[in-house]
Amino acid sequence: RMIPMENAMTLIKGRRSTRKFLDKTIPQELLEQVLEAGRYAPSGKNVQAAHFLVIENRAILDKLAVLVREAFQEAGVKRPEGYIFHYDPKVLIVLCNRTDNVNNLADTGCALENMMLMASELELGSCWINQLKDLNGNETINAYLYSLGMENEERAYGALALGYPDSETGLPEHTPKERTGNRVTYVK
Amino acid sequence: RMIPMENAMTLIKGRRSTRKFLDKTIPQELLEQVLEAGRYAPSGKNVQAAHFLVIENRAILDKLAVLVREAFQEAGVKRPEGYIFHYDPKVLIVLCNRTDNVNNLADTGCALENMMLMASELELGSCWINQLKDLNGNETINAYLYSLGMENEERAYGALALGYPDSETGLPEHTPKERTGNRVTYVK
Repeated sequence: RMIPMENAMTLIKGRRSTRKFLDKTIPQELLEQVLEAGRYAPSGKNVQAAHFLVIENRAILDKLAVLVREAFQEAGVKRPEGYIFHYDPKVLIVLCNRTDNVNNLADTGCALENMMLMASELELGSCWINQLKDLNGNETINAYLYSLGMENEERAYGALALGYPDSETGLPEHTPKERTGNRVTYVK
Repeated sequence: RMIPMENAMTLIKGRRSTRKFLDKTIPQELLEQVLEAGRYAPSGKNVQAAHFLVIENRAILDKLAVLVREAFQEAGVKRPEGYIFHYDPKVLIVLCNRTDNVNNLADTGCALENMMLMASELELGSCWINQLKDLNGNETINAYLYSLGMENEERAYGALALGYPDSETGLPEHTPKERTGNRVTYVK
């Protein structure tokens, strides 16, 4: 493997965001490993209320891109011409969760991180997608997600674009960018 | 090490919550590795707005426990006699983030998961603590956290209890509980 899985820190620092994907099918076995990693994330009070919508259909991905573009237009948010919020991945995993779960966003973050780490180890590219969370009050998008299997008591709280990375933006060994933020204060 | 770090999945499935800690100091080097894992979590738009308050002081931990107990009492939320929300860890890491960061909760989830995985590899016990997030509108608790170093534009969005696990609740190799929730829907 390109990123040697020496320990947790190399795994964590080896993860990077992929924003350009190949049109190459992800073997079901690998997709299942990524999903399993997400499913085994902890959840507050162990409610396990995540619901992973795994969208592999090109027409549905295109439709979602249009709906998000229109939602931003309506809201007066400027986006580039032909904007595609999900970067045209082979698979988009939408993380739904119960609206009445007080930890829905934090639970989603944990599951996303597990999936990104797992994908990285499997040499799959991934990118954390926030737009469906930002727009989870949009009725048109919600209606569409309901038609895809989202439950009435659920909303989207995050998403993951997944696929083989385009060579230009592949996953070579790399030194991660130094963290300048995310600071630490010791309280002795 | 007790949990062999064979790959990302064994790391992910090896993590468990520790709710009873030994009064044994965490070597600074290990504590820094846990914090570094959290700092290297992704953040939406790469804002790196997390702020880790690392509380190692017994008196401060006790004071926080009292403030949280009183806040629940005021809110009419029943808690057991002598309730200690953070399980008396050796260190409590409070994850503050900017209130104007739309991804503050999701960013916090990613950082928490990285820290839990890193702690697990280092044979440290950890537990995800949500009460400071649930109470981050409480003025008394906020005033106290401000006095500890939380910035005006920040609130607590999560916390991690950290320490060596008590032997009874140690970190043996274990089969993680099957996930019955966190279901998957394929949209073909």
